[in-house]
This record gives sequence, structure tokens and C-alpha cells, in this order.
Amino acid sequence: METTKATPGETGTTKTKAYGTNAADALLEQLNINRRKPTPHDVEIEILFCGVCHSDLHTAKNEWHNTIYPCVPGHEIVGKIVRVGEHVKKFKAGDTAAVGCMVDSCRECDYCKEGLEQYCANGMTGTYNAPDAHLNTHTYGGYAENIVVDEAFVLKVPENLDLASTAPLLCAGITTYSPLKHWNVGPGKKVGIVGIGGLGHMGVKIAKAMGAEVIVFTTSASKFDDAKRLGADDVILSKDAEQMKKYAGKLHFVLDAVSAQHDINAYLNLLRVDGSLALVGAPEQPLPVAAFSIIPFRRSFAGSMIGGIAETQEMLDFCGKHNIVADIEMINIQHINEAYERLLKGDVKYRFVIDMASLKN
Amino acid sequence: METTKATPGETGTTKTKAYGTNAADALLEQLNINRRKPTPHDVEIEILFCGVCHSDLHTAKNEWHNTIYPCVPGHEIVGKIVRVGEHVKKFKAGDTAAVGCMVDSCRECDYCKEGLEQYCANGMTGTYNAPDAHLNTHTYGGYAENIVVDEAFVLKVPENLDLASTAPLLCAGITTYSPLKHWNVGPGKKVGIVGIGGLGHMGVKIAKAMGAEVIVFTTSASKFDDAKRLGADDVILSKDAEQMKKYAGKLHFVLDAVSAQHDINAYLNLLRVDGSLALVGAPEQPLPVAAFSIIPFRRSFAGSMIGGIAETQEMLDFCGKHNIVADIEMINIQHINEAYERLLKGDVKYRFVIDMASLKN
Repeated sequence: METTKATPGETGTTKTKAYGTNAADALLEQLNINRRKPTPHDVEIEILFCGVCHSDLHTAKNEWHNTIYPCVPGHEIVGKIVRVGEHVKKFKAGDTAAVGCMVDSCRECDYCKEGLEQYCANGMTGTYNAPDAHLNTHTYGGYAENIVVDEAFVLKVPENLDLASTAPLLCAGITTYSPLKHWNVGPGKKVGIVGIGGLGHMGVKIAKAMGAEVIVFTTSASKFDDAKRLGADDVILSKDAEQMKKYAGKLHFVLDAVSAQHDINAYLNLLRVDGSLALVGAPEQPLPVAAFSIIPFRRSFAGSMIGGIAETQEMLDFCGKHNIVADIEMINIQHINEAYERLLKGDVKYRFVIDMASLKN
Repeated sequence: METTKATPGETGTTKTKAYGTNAADALLEQLNINRRKPTPHDVEIEILFCGVCHSDLHTAKNEWHNTIYPCVPGHEIVGKIVRVGEHVKKFKAGDTAAVGCMVDSCRECDYCKEGLEQYCANGMTGTYNAPDAHLNTHTYGGYAENIVVDEAFVLKVPENLDLASTAPLLCAGITTYSPLKHWNVGPGKKVGIVGIGGLGHMGVKIAKAMGAEVIVFTTSASKFDDAKRLGADDVILSKDAEQMKKYAGKLHFVLDAVSAQHDINAYLNLLRVDGSLALVGAPEQPLPVAAFSIIPFRRSFAGSMIGGIAETQEMLDFCGKHNIVADIEMINIQHINEAYERLLKGDVKYRFVIDMASLKN
């Protein structure tokens, strides 16, 4: 593969091997996609590892009713830069780099200017399944040999972190870091983490590293030991009303990482005055909220979506400093459909990561 | 009625004429209750006017399933001080004074110390239907000749305000002022007020006086002119999806004063990034909240309950400065049952206030 500077004004596309699906009810299979050749501000990344997010599965199966086919998922991307456009400043060929859930945004609205590109008023460009401003198609994600991205949306990876285990930080990491930071989690704060999966297990590690007292809420007694190992100070079996009482009105913040239907009122009632519960999982059906869960104690039921680019870099640097990565199970791309099956059953500790070298096979 | 200093250590009770009910399905009628004689920190207030809050009706009819009978409602109380305990410093006989939704709290927990008595960790003492720490009974509200309250929970009334129209400030006023203040409503902020009733009409007046741009959302086109008269900069018919689009993602804050079931997602979608919707009405059934109403734009669905004592005084002073009172319809106590019927139909502009002189008849 080339490692030279891209020619300014170079146009056209290159064929890239990828894994994706052509229909909601079809399995993922190998297919070819087009990537643009790097423009002056782009970098081309050879993808080494790509995490498997539940959003990949939702999108592949059109569960959010907005999928454009063919669909190539993947937005937890780490790899090596193989080519840079002539105006690229942050990176050079050979650098390790990462791409998360966004590859662009309008960069002009108030939100973009504040570093909140994820909430871009004109709609950020998702790493997959979004309109592609360069090619007359939609974006394709990280289940592929390579990806071409404007350097402004490419992140640096701390050198001390294991690269495969770093991939999930790009979505699971920032999705939990951003709300924990936004709602001022730190020393002296009691924080609940609901659900120990891909997101929740990152939430525990990050909240603990931020200095908070961390209480894990799980429906599964089998996860108690693991929750403690991840850093939890206490673990509560959420279906036991007696255990739940221990923290009623006691928590400053709750991070709710559950995508399945669940009784949100049971968790709102854990909050102190002015406490917030931030939902980062996305249950399909609306969650009924009782007025008396939020009116007393001035509680907030909030949501949060990934994080901005500068904040994502901040998260990676934080994880580098605290030596935090995801707990992963590595798979070959040929096993992605089986991995989706297991993901649906919650049978993974705690994130699948695809070894993209397998795509060369 | 006496206007002398109370004797220290004076014990016992005095019979007081009141209006209340003995059962959920019974009408309100005249009955006699006991009031304590003022202890050293108490003031005795001759009640001149008492507002009629929807909570009065909920409680009288046991709709929140916690009513203790006999029940004497009323927590929008204004009157004249007729007697003060020997240690009372803020008031003297002859002063105009007011009492809202609370008559006491533990005064020792963190929340009480922060001036958030309404969220007292040990439970604030409601003006009615709460355990009475002085008498071996429960508290009785303002549909009565007089009330005896610790001066710490008694408010001063600005002299320039019409006294009868001031009564509703004690609940409807503070219930809207507190969240508007807490969520930083002021110049440069676009604020939605949902529902123009007892609470909502105060919300419009107060938000406007705080300097915000105020947009009213109502299901009733007949309220357009009134909303403008109250100070709204714009009025939207909430059942018209096209009109609703005008403010999608545009509002910094929404105050939702609707007690009936309604689609909360339609209003959450009006919020900008980091915007909050605060519910101050209390619909009986839980409100379904879609994950995608709050996750994009990091929105919050919050609740808020009245305000602390210092904040209630601040609200009264603010209303005095801006010459804000409620729009009221005065009734005699003998018409309270009819007023409840009309309240259920939303047939009042915008708050009933009882002329308590009628109780003497």
C-alpha cells in the first residue's frame, strides 16, 4: 500500500474490500465499496481493529428504520495512517490513529464551534449510513480494509494502550466519558452505573478513575464479582427492591447503559436533589416516567450521545493516563454474524473487536 | 380577636372555623378544627384570602391516595398577623403576611441548610395533610379563619400588590418562579410555557419579567389573545404539527404546567442542546419518553416542586418589583364545591381565590 503524499486535487475512488449487508434480513458478507482518494485535508487509514457496537447491529438490521443499503457498519476504528493529503498537519504516514462515530459535521453552526459536533445543527456525518459529502453515496464504516477521513475528525491514540482493546473507546468509551464529565462526576460523588455490558463496563472504569464512588446495578447476580473487578465499590441486584432501598435518594448521578426496556423510575428514585440520570442506551419503546419520580428532589432524566472531537481526544488521553481500555473478545470478520447473535443475548465480556487482518484472508 | 403577645409556654388549642371534607366522595362543608395557641416562635394569622390550587382538589378527593380525613385544604394563604410569640422577630401584630405550601421542615439536613426546605431529607411539613409536630394530629390548611405557623415559614408581602391576587403567588407563583430561576431563564433565552392555567399564566408573566422571549403552547386557539395579553411573544397551537416545527430545537427551556396526560416528546423536541423541560404539573399516569427525544441534543426531562422559603420571599419581592399578581376570580367559601367542578373543566381565568370573610357568614 502507498505511503506517499496524496496529490492535490486528486480525484476518483479506489475499490476497498469490506464486510456488510444488502438487506435487513440478510447476513453480513464480503463486498466491495468505493473510498475516495485522499483530498488535501484527508488521511487514509489502514484499519487494524474495529469494535462491534450494538448500533452496528441495529443499523445492519434496519431496526431504526433509516438504513441505506449496502450497509457497512463499524465506528470503533483504530489503525495506521498510510497516506496523508498535502495540507494535513496533525498526522503523517505511519502514525497510529483512530476514528469514532463521526467523520464530519458542518463546522459552522454554534454547536460545532463549541466542540459539540455530535449535536451539529445541520446534522453530523456518521461514520456509516450518512450522506457522503464527497461521493454521491452514503458513508461506509470500519468493517473494511481502510477508511479516508478528514484529519479534523481523526484522533491520536496514546502509545501505552493495547491497540485492539482501545478500539471500543471510540464509541463505548466516549459515550460514557462524556456524560460522566458533563455531570461533574468526581471525588465525593456517588455514581450509579446501570447495566454491565459494552457501555456499562467502560462507565465503571472511567467513573472510578474520575475519583467517584461507583455503585453498579445489575439484573444478574453472576456479574457481581466482575463488577467489583472492574472497580465498583458496591453492587446492587436491581430486581431486589430491598437492596435498591440502600441508595434511594443517595446518588448524585446515574449512567443508564441499558438498551432493553426497564423501569426507569426505579433508578430515578436513587437520585439526590438535583441529580441526573443520563440514558446512553436506546430502548426501542418509550420509557414511562412518573411525575413523582422527578418532581420531588428536582431530578432530571437526561440523554447523552457520544462526545465532540476535542472531548474524544481528551477521553483517549485520560484513558492513556489511567491505563484504561475495554475488556474485549477478539474475532475474525468471518465470525461477525455469530458475534451479532451472541451480542443479542448479551453473551460477550464486554466488547467484540474484529481483527481486520482477517479480512485479507 | 386578640392582638397581644402570646404567653411563653402557653399550651392548648383553640377551636377554629374551617371548610373541609371527611371523605373522598363527600363535598366540602363547614367544620371545626383545633389550632395550637402560638408558641414563642409562632405567629397567628387571620386569613383574609386563600387561593384554590389543583392540589387542594387532588387531596380532598384522595386522588394521590394519601389523604388523612378530615381534610382542610388551602396553601395559598394571605392575611393579617393578630398575635406573635415572644421570640418572634420578623413580624408584629398588624403585619400583612403569607404562608405557602410548607409550615415546617427538619431544618437540620443538608437540603434545609441550603434553603431547599421543599426537598427536606426528613420530609417537609405540608401546610395540610402532613403530620403535625405540635398537635397529635395532621396539619390543616388555609380554608379556615386563621392559622398558626412558625415565623421561619411565614413570608412578607410587598405592600404594592393587591392582596387577594397575591394569594396564588404562594403556590402557583413559586412553582413557576423557582424552575425559571433554577434553569437560568433571562434575556437572550427562548422559553416555552406549556398550558395556560393557574400555573402557566404565572409562568408567562414571570418569564417575561425575567427578560426572556416567551412562547406559549396551548391546545386551545381561544387562549391566543389572552396569552399575548399575559406577555407571550408568540403562541403556538400545540396540536398543529406544522406550527410546532417553528420551534423545533430552538428553545432553551420549557416549563410544562399541564396536569393532564400529554405527549411530552413533542415538547422535548423543542429543546436546544442542553435544554431542559421542567414538569410542574403532575399527570396521574407516567409519561412515555422516547430515548431519541433526549439522547440527541443532550436534553433533560426534569421536575420541580415549589421553592424554598428564602426563594419564596425572593419571588414575592420580584413580583412586587414587577407588579405581578395572579389573574383571579374571587369566590365565597360556600361556593368551593362548584369552584372545584369548574376547576376540573379548566373553567377559570386563572385562579379561584376564596374571600375568607365569607366564612364568618
